Amino acid sequence: MDALKEKILQSGKVIDNRLVKVDSFLNHQVDIELLNKIGKEFQKRFGNKNVTKILTLEASGIAIACITAQYFNVPVVFAKKHEANNLDKNRYETKVYSFTKDTLYNIKVAKEYLQPADKILIIDDFLAYGQAMAGLIDLVKQAGAEIAGIGIMIEKSFQKGREMIKDPDIQLESLAIIEAIQNGKITFNK
Amino acid sequence: MDALKEKILQSGKVIDNRLVKVDSFLNHQVDIELLNKIGKEFQKRFGNKNVTKILTLEASGIAIACITAQYFNVPVVFAKKHEANNLDKNRYETKVYSFTKDTLYNIKVAKEYLQPADKILIIDDFLAYGQAMAGLIDLVKQAGAEIAGIGIMIEKSFQKGREMIKDPDIQLESLAIIEAIQNGKITFNK
Repeated sequence: MDALKEKILQSGKVIDNRLVKVDSFLNHQVDIELLNKIGKEFQKRFGNKNVTKILTLEASGIAIACITAQYFNVPVVFAKKHEANNLDKNRYETKVYSFTKDTLYNIKVAKEYLQPADKILIIDDFLAYGQAMAGLIDLVKQAGAEIAGIGIMIEKSFQKGREMIKDPDIQLESLAIIEAIQNGKITFNK
Repeated sequence: MDALKEKILQSGKVIDNRLVKVDSFLNHQVDIELLNKIGKEFQKRFGNKNVTKILTLEASGIAIACITAQYFNVPVVFAKKHEANNLDKNRYETKVYSFTKDTLYNIKVAKEYLQPADKILIIDDFLAYGQAMAGLIDLVKQAGAEIAGIGIMIEKSFQKGREMIKDPDIQLESLAIIEAIQNGKITFNK
């Protein structure tokens, strides 16, 4: 998706050969106009999947998931990373390791918000090593719901997250795929 | 705002005389259609304020802030609660105590996303004791920016958060004001 790739090149900050920060339009400040383009694009790619719900992970996924949900007329559910005193104890949970934050999270969703009849579109900002995505897939499977597809904004293909998913039947769409980051330069393969 | 009050009565879960959980449409599952009504309502109330940016706090504020931003054509900035290895060190920060989570947070915003020329609409899901709101106001003041207004979805007036703000010149609008929660029953005063 050209608008996204241009934005990454223009406003992404390359930190090192593994990391590009997109705080100026996604992870801290949010460019709502760009997210609307992204939402429309996900609708084009998954519009025929009878999606009943969009699942994402707090906090970075919430903005894209909510804007995208408008094009599907479905609710969003965001899995929680941080314990709240008032979170339902009747929940699905699974462990996720974050390389960015060097932390092991327990991510969880209250059982009532993922039903066996649901067709879930999983949306996330990044696909890197695939840890968070594997966790989200696990939550959907625990609920006995169907995965209608996976929509990623930015995939870093050199970190092999796609291989973590291991299911050729799941349609995975990334709107920008970064093949390499070298000497401050980002190369896309799509 | 009637649609919101009805939703709270219909789907809110009263936990005790201080706490009502709105996980089914806001804090875990998100009702995007309702948020669009809320966004339009904020636009009615603050549309004449020349808002340049919407500021909120992760994670619960992100959904409302992003949907609302579409009616103002401005970006969203969400203040961060949790430390990330790659968050800019050049930032404003302030301490916020959360009664719900019984935790002291350091909330922060990278300096580049709050500029002195900005007119900031602060949006949040709840106004309870006012700790988070006081923190957000402090961040805007540190940046030397102007507060165009404060938009709250649900105010619990019996927890006196409004008094924390202490500035009669700031327009504060709450779309539902809960006066009391007693024996499982919610009473609104607006």
